[in-house]
Amino acid sequence: MPDNRLQAALSYLKAHYPEHLEQLQEFLRIPSISALSQHAVDVAKAGDWLKQRLSQAGFFNAEVHVTEGHPIVTASTAIRPDRPTVLIYGHYDVQPVDPLPSWHHGPFEPTIIDDILYARGASDDKGQVFMQVIAAEAWEQTKGLPVNLKFLFEGEEEIGSTHLGAYIRAHQRELAADIAVISDTPMYQEGYPAISYGLRGLASLEISVEGPYQDLHSGTYGGTVMNPAHALAQLIAALHDRDGRVLVPGFYDQVDSLSPQEREALGQLPFDEEEFRKSLNVPQLFGEAGYSVNERAWVRPTLEVNGLWSGFTGEGQKTIIPASAHAKITCRLVPHQDPHQIVDAISQYLESHVPPGVRLRIQRGNAAPGIVTPIDHPAVQAAQAAIQSVYQTPASYIRMGGSIPVVVDFAQVLGMPTLLLGFALPDENFHAPNEHFHLENFRRGAATLATLWQYLGGNHD
Amino acid sequence: MPDNRLQAALSYLKAHYPEHLEQLQEFLRIPSISALSQHAVDVAKAGDWLKQRLSQAGFFNAEVHVTEGHPIVTASTAIRPDRPTVLIYGHYDVQPVDPLPSWHHGPFEPTIIDDILYARGASDDKGQVFMQVIAAEAWEQTKGLPVNLKFLFEGEEEIGSTHLGAYIRAHQRELAADIAVISDTPMYQEGYPAISYGLRGLASLEISVEGPYQDLHSGTYGGTVMNPAHALAQLIAALHDRDGRVLVPGFYDQVDSLSPQEREALGQLPFDEEEFRKSLNVPQLFGEAGYSVNERAWVRPTLEVNGLWSGFTGEGQKTIIPASAHAKITCRLVPHQDPHQIVDAISQYLESHVPPGVRLRIQRGNAAPGIVTPIDHPAVQAAQAAIQSVYQTPASYIRMGGSIPVVVDFAQVLGMPTLLLGFALPDENFHAPNEHFHLENFRRGAATLATLWQYLGGNHD
Repeated sequence: MPDNRLQAALSYLKAHYPEHLEQLQEFLRIPSISALSQHAVDVAKAGDWLKQRLSQAGFFNAEVHVTEGHPIVTASTAIRPDRPTVLIYGHYDVQPVDPLPSWHHGPFEPTIIDDILYARGASDDKGQVFMQVIAAEAWEQTKGLPVNLKFLFEGEEEIGSTHLGAYIRAHQRELAADIAVISDTPMYQEGYPAISYGLRGLASLEISVEGPYQDLHSGTYGGTVMNPAHALAQLIAALHDRDGRVLVPGFYDQVDSLSPQEREALGQLPFDEEEFRKSLNVPQLFGEAGYSVNERAWVRPTLEVNGLWSGFTGEGQKTIIPASAHAKITCRLVPHQDPHQIVDAISQYLESHVPPGVRLRIQRGNAAPGIVTPIDHPAVQAAQAAIQSVYQTPASYIRMGGSIPVVVDFAQVLGMPTLLLGFALPDENFHAPNEHFHLENFRRGAATLATLWQYLGGNHD
Repeated sequence: MPDNRLQAALSYLKAHYPEHLEQLQEFLRIPSISALSQHAVDVAKAGDWLKQRLSQAGFFNAEVHVTEGHPIVTASTAIRPDRPTVLIYGHYDVQPVDPLPSWHHGPFEPTIIDDILYARGASDDKGQVFMQVIAAEAWEQTKGLPVNLKFLFEGEEEIGSTHLGAYIRAHQRELAADIAVISDTPMYQEGYPAISYGLRGLASLEISVEGPYQDLHSGTYGGTVMNPAHALAQLIAALHDRDGRVLVPGFYDQVDSLSPQEREALGQLPFDEEEFRKSLNVPQLFGEAGYSVNERAWVRPTLEVNGLWSGFTGEGQKTIIPASAHAKITCRLVPHQDPHQIVDAISQYLESHVPPGVRLRIQRGNAAPGIVTPIDHPAVQAAQAAIQSVYQTPASYIRMGGSIPVVVDFAQVLGMPTLLLGFALPDENFHAPNEHFHLENFRRGAATLATLWQYLGGNHD
């Protein structure tokens, strides 16, 4: 009676919702910002918390693995060879919180207003990680899971998963599974649950333009040397044409052109450009000519400056020529673009455009290619059925503008496809102030996952 | 016997040098950074210190005047109508100290190495202000000054002398004098004492490019909106051509072309371009084509970005599209350029170049025109003689790249010319880390000023 078993798991989730909500807030109170070294202790604390919670859920082999960076947390059911095995991945680290004054509540003081939970990490990704834990617990504490589950949670996703790749290569047997499931992606929009079948990759670099040996008095020296801030502005301005197309030679060489079928499917998703523009409060939308907004965000690569700094930026005025000027740059890549080649091409282009009188220094950062998962995979179809059962509406097949580097390792090292099944909403401020998570999707998401285990494992019992 | 009287003053300076040096260091220990509101108390403290020191020197009417900003300190001798009257101006506020890690000693912990005094304000301008006080004291404590002196010291020079103009307009009678003397300029180079006869003016503005209502996830939103950091880079890049000439229409309209005589005089000053390039550690010098380095720094206007900031600038990586991007800009102007017209012209130019998808906000800052003082003025000739007497070499007539807004008020409100007689060296890091002052010039400068009072007032006794 598979249905009765699923009902027991779903009832467990309902009955324990209040305490689950308390526990999630406890998890969110830990400021596990992986990018800032002063928060390393908090990242470790969040990892420990997660390990304890997995044990509590019934996964007594839960373990914290020390890395040279932040820890990795694992756990698993007993493995029965007659059942399909699923590798669940998520991350318990979070983005930095600046600008802090823009938060209406402390980023690490979870606050619920109108069934929406506000906190850094609420949707990206602690809330969704916790959903995975309780969906599995709901089975383990009632009739037992109908699939083999392995959990792999890391604390470095927001800084490029620096040590996860090595861990995966060193633990291929322990991590082996039929499919990976990740809940770190949003639905298409409110009322449109979605399965993401494509992710953009990432290539990053930091550039420094160096001029005089120190800041110079702009009266005494103004007119005698190239100002590094001017040189940096010229370099950045040279990266795009007026229509937003990247001018780096070779940047688009490996980009697949969009098939008429895919273009049509993307075009059928509801999208109100004016509504979108208003929601961002920009005077107009902007991007590569000839592509729709969704196409620009999902199937076209981008090059963005994430940060700029030079000279005096404090209160008042300081009449100097800055000694140097800096920019952080990341590219979002689509499948078949090689991130290392892209960083090479950008570096060469910048080198060839350095204005006279300054030096350019380039520091390479993280890199991950883009990826696409086949829609006709059985696990994708089981997820589609689970969503329909809980949400009473079919899931949209969408692509993602963001990057999840681990999906590349799952494909290349472990040889498994990944099911991207997330329950956040796209406007929940993942990397911005006032990150939040609609609790309706927290409840429905956990129910969808519990249902998915039934549909994936049901015929094995 | 004027010579005996001068000798008494010069002997006084020699005899009291050790205690003067102690007192100067006490003055320099007060972190009177006018640009930073948290240092307002320190600026006031430095003003009080100066008032006390003037009283000690014999100027018992020394007074601190409260303004809406930082205080103004005044003092004077008794005024005898048969003697020339000199208005001495200087400033006791200092520049900010960042980047702090570049200082070899604390900026407010004066340190003497090889007869050089290191501290913020050592040369710009506390050291020179203190020189004025002790040169006057040397006369007052011996035979009495042969000229009428009025002191006017402010605490807002480094932030554009915001409240000094109103003070001067309200106290025209009290400040009336035959000539103003300012020691806030450098000599031409070591061994080349100088009288500056031209100063560049200043026009400043801060620009903000505003895009989406908050920082956006660069994966989810990259490709859909104009990135404000890109837009700012385009605007800054549009301000200069590849040769460093300012592209703002009208920017050069009021600039005097250089006379063959002046060009020849400037060309005769010793200048080693390669030495200068090396001292700044730049791969090559840079600036407007067709002008020498000194011409570019003294008689040509400039437009410089003093600071840039946007998005995430901390440790690590944050994949965002910044909500906004900002730049601080100042222009150095030459005589006849109207600073307000220049800010208007820049604003209009920037407005007309705003890329699509962002908004531009411009905040106007301080403004002061450039100025030139006639070389044949009797006080300029007396200063030339005083320098020759102390330094045993003639003073060079030079122009300055920097700006001293008060010189404009002295000319326009008080109707008096200004003698710019400074004893710093051009490479003493006025607005940079490790500001310093060669004590040899502190001693000789004080002696030169004491001698100047003799030459200016000698024939009145």
